[in-house]
Amino acid sequence: MACTLSDFASRFGGELLGDAGLEITGVAPIERAGAHEIAFVSQAKYLRDVESTQAGALILPPEGRDRTERPRIITTNPYLYFARVSALLNPEPRPEPGIHATATVHAEASVPKSASIGPGAVIGRGVKIGERCAIGPNCVIGEQVTIGDDCLFHASVTIYPNCVLGSRVILHGGCVIGSDGFGLANDQGRWVKIPQVGRVLIGDDVEVGAGTTIDRGALDDTVIEEGVKLDNLIQVAHNVHIGAHTAIAACTGIAGSAKIGKYCMIGGAAMIHGHLEIADKVKISANTLITKSLTKPGTYTSALPFNEHSEWLKNAVHLRNLDKMVSRIKELEKRISELEGKKQP
Amino acid sequence: MACTLSDFASRFGGELLGDAGLEITGVAPIERAGAHEIAFVSQAKYLRDVESTQAGALILPPEGRDRTERPRIITTNPYLYFARVSALLNPEPRPEPGIHATATVHAEASVPKSASIGPGAVIGRGVKIGERCAIGPNCVIGEQVTIGDDCLFHASVTIYPNCVLGSRVILHGGCVIGSDGFGLANDQGRWVKIPQVGRVLIGDDVEVGAGTTIDRGALDDTVIEEGVKLDNLIQVAHNVHIGAHTAIAACTGIAGSAKIGKYCMIGGAAMIHGHLEIADKVKISANTLITKSLTKPGTYTSALPFNEHSEWLKNAVHLRNLDKMVSRIKELEKRISELEGKKQP
Amino acid sequence: MACTLSDFASRFGGELLGDAGLEITGVAPIERAGAHEIAFVSQAKYLRDVESTQAGALILPPEGRDRTERPRIITTNPYLYFARVSALLNPEPRPEPGIHATATVHAEASVPKSASIGPGAVIGRGVKIGERCAIGPNCVIGEQVTIGDDCLFHASVTIYPNCVLGSRVILHGGCVIGSDGFGLANDQGRWVKIPQVGRVLIGDDVEVGAGTTIDRGALDDTVIEEGVKLDNLIQVAHNVHIGAHTAIAACTGIAGSAKIGKYCMIGGAAMIHGHLEIADKVKISANTLITKSLTKPGTYTSALPFNEHSEWLKNAVHLRNLDKMVSRIKELEKRISELEGKKQP
Repeated sequence: MACTLSDFASRFGGELLGDAGLEITGVAPIERAGAHEIAFVSQAKYLRDVESTQAGALILPPEGRDRTERPRIITTNPYLYFARVSALLNPEPRPEPGIHATATVHAEASVPKSASIGPGAVIGRGVKIGERCAIGPNCVIGEQVTIGDDCLFHASVTIYPNCVLGSRVILHGGCVIGSDGFGLANDQGRWVKIPQVGRVLIGDDVEVGAGTTIDRGALDDTVIEEGVKLDNLIQVAHNVHIGAHTAIAACTGIAGSAKIGKYCMIGGAAMIHGHLEIADKVKISANTLITKSLTKPGTYTSALPFNEHSEWLKNAVHLRNLDKMVSRIKELEKRISELEGKKQP
Repeated sequence: MACTLSDFASRFGGELLGDAGLEITGVAPIERAGAHEIAFVSQAKYLRDVESTQAGALILPPEGRDRTERPRIITTNPYLYFARVSALLNPEPRPEPGIHATATVHAEASVPKSASIGPGAVIGRGVKIGERCAIGPNCVIGEQVTIGDDCLFHASVTIYPNCVLGSRVILHGGCVIGSDGFGLANDQGRWVKIPQVGRVLIGDDVEVGAGTTIDRGALDDTVIEEGVKLDNLIQVAHNVHIGAHTAIAACTGIAGSAKIGKYCMIGGAAMIHGHLEIADKVKISANTLITKSLTKPGTYTSALPFNEHSEWLKNAVHLRNLDKMVSRIKELEKRISELEGKKQP
Repeated sequence: MACTLSDFASRFGGELLGDAGLEITGVAPIERAGAHEIAFVSQAKYLRDVESTQAGALILPPEGRDRTERPRIITTNPYLYFARVSALLNPEPRPEPGIHATATVHAEASVPKSASIGPGAVIGRGVKIGERCAIGPNCVIGEQVTIGDDCLFHASVTIYPNCVLGSRVILHGGCVIGSDGFGLANDQGRWVKIPQVGRVLIGDDVEVGAGTTIDRGALDDTVIEEGVKLDNLIQVAHNVHIGAHTAIAACTGIAGSAKIGKYCMIGGAAMIHGHLEIADKVKISANTLITKSLTKPGTYTSALPFNEHSEWLKNAVHLRNLDKMVSRIKELEKRISELEGKKQP
């Protein structure tokens, strides 16, 4: 696929300087982009790379306007512009429509002609698949699942019965949607399973990473609103609610019934306790444990800084004895006050 | 499926008050339960919800006995009672017995007529599957695996050769049982793989969550005793031993040869070091790292509390300098003692 | 399979004492090894086990040379010697060559006669598979993937298009290679996906654990060099580079563009931030968060020690108030200096 710079400018805006008819065939990092590739600089501080690049064209912030003679597009958000250009040049390849001979599609499932069902995929009774969906090889879609249009499921995705997905949902390899929540009642030491009769509801434009698991609700549903982006190996427990356009990095765990706001950003390996509420636009740092509700936007952190092991060993002892340290400080304060008292009169 | 309140009482006990013949078709949360649904209140402090509910019937603790005129069952453990009622009303759907045409079952595997083998499932040589088992679509059961009766494996479960599973075991989508432990010897910097010749033994009534991985033993076996419940995305390393009726929440990792007692409860994202022993009935908080043996019951915790990021930044510096803080306190104690010494004589 | 002790000595060296013709059929732990099994003692401090063992033969360190009359091999690295002996006695079973009738192999894929393609496996267009590879049941290999010789993929492995793997690579059940990195640009709150056009390159002799996910690069490639060993449920983000012969334990997460050196050892549940560099031969303790580059070898740690919950509760308050503690200490230092000043003159 090839486009000219003027194709980009007419679609995505920006100020185009230099040869508008230059053909661009791909994107590349600025340090190795060639004569028919386009590169970008996201921030002014990286503009020095502009001098040595061999890129055919550049996407630059306003500060870069006059730093080069190369064909270039000036925009206030080069990274976003680059995302759009790259998406245009690298359309997600879609398999040919049709049901592969080795797929198992239930007679009472609804699969439009525009959809593609990969080898070994299993489509259960009552499933409704939207237009132009691509269901990857060896995916398993449980009974009565409803899927919107233009979804892309990579290989070996599992969806349990009755879940509902919107349009343009991307599911990556091995992710599991709708597994039973971890609901157990205790009977004198033995666990009794509580049927998980809720569903998972996933909005439009959601992306779910490889190996991520999203449990169905116990009674009510687990809800992932539109535009949510989940990275790999994330655990979403039953009855979690994730607000629209929230992005969550890999290895994060969200416990049952947590309600996360819209437009939040959650770093990798964060852990969110259950039955709490997180406001819109909250940022949570990587490796941070959230143990209670966050009622206002802001950035929250609890990561323990690392040390050389020998230093850490010395500090670790004290970590377990902070309360004693505080007692010693109190005692000192008392003794000093006494000394001061004795002196001053 | 519908049951009357007297069906419940005759099966599960409790004191039934009101219309014993009322037909109940489902369970629901108390705030949205309808005329033919049953809801529950687990603890006295939530009894206010009883006033506004539209539920056809209620499961209540003794304190709730006289808080409503609605048909109700009084029991000391409403949550457990609810679990039993819900299981009766929501029996796990099981596929029809039989081997799907697209499954691959080795000629020397043993599959009873009462069992169901889903589309695309692969059953290896010498496998023995128990009565009424349901093996989900695209599951892969390695050679010589033995499986008890009434097991339910969801889609795309993998079991490596020679593992042994009890009866009524539930395995969720994408979990992996019997993968090689991480056993390596070092030869001048290069790693040499140590064959993992042990198995995984899983007892009756065990449930394993989606994406969870349980490694086979190196020489001896990895053992998951009866009634153990494992949530999603848990890693169980080689030669771990988990005692009966222990429940472990998602994202937890258990390192090699750890021995965990019976009736333990382990919170999400806990990490258990290897080659240690944890007593029966221990509780480990979420996000807690256990680095040495725990010889007596109790609750153990190591989670770092979160802060607003700006506050955390200030504290984080000190976390790396606790040893210096203690030195400063010691020095103060010495100086104060000197001052006191000089004063008193 | 059976070997004599002299078979071992002629292949792997060491000093053989006792009956060189003794037939050994397997390896076993020293406490339950029988007359035709060989056991090992890795360190002198465990040599007491030699007295009570029933093992047919032993692999011992030099200090154990005269602690028993049993047939034995003396070597400076018994654990490595044992690894080699066990690998000889327990060769990884390989399925018969050939393409299973239920596999889907694209007409333009290249599969040598010596390779085995398991039931339900899907091999995409342009895939090149090396000699003697075993592709497990229900694996999905995307278009244009290249795989070296003698690789072993267990069940339900997913490889996305265009990835390149070396020889003797072992992939465990459910792992996902080449999924999209988590690359997103923000457009007034909404996320715009950045196409991930890089690949995953995996060197010779790499092993990847069950459920582990390795994302493809955004523009450049994600690189796993030769001899790297990854345990289960590890997340490797886009453009990560892991140096040769580094071993990483389970549940670890590595954020985008982190560059990890050769011969590193990383403990379980470690988290490595993105865009940093870790020197060769670094050791990172379990549960440790690495937030900046490590320029020299050494062991680094940040794990918070656990406590009984009631003790932890007391300490946790102080953890959030360290900055105030330091202020109190400073204040004390000032007051004491004043007292000392007043006294001494």
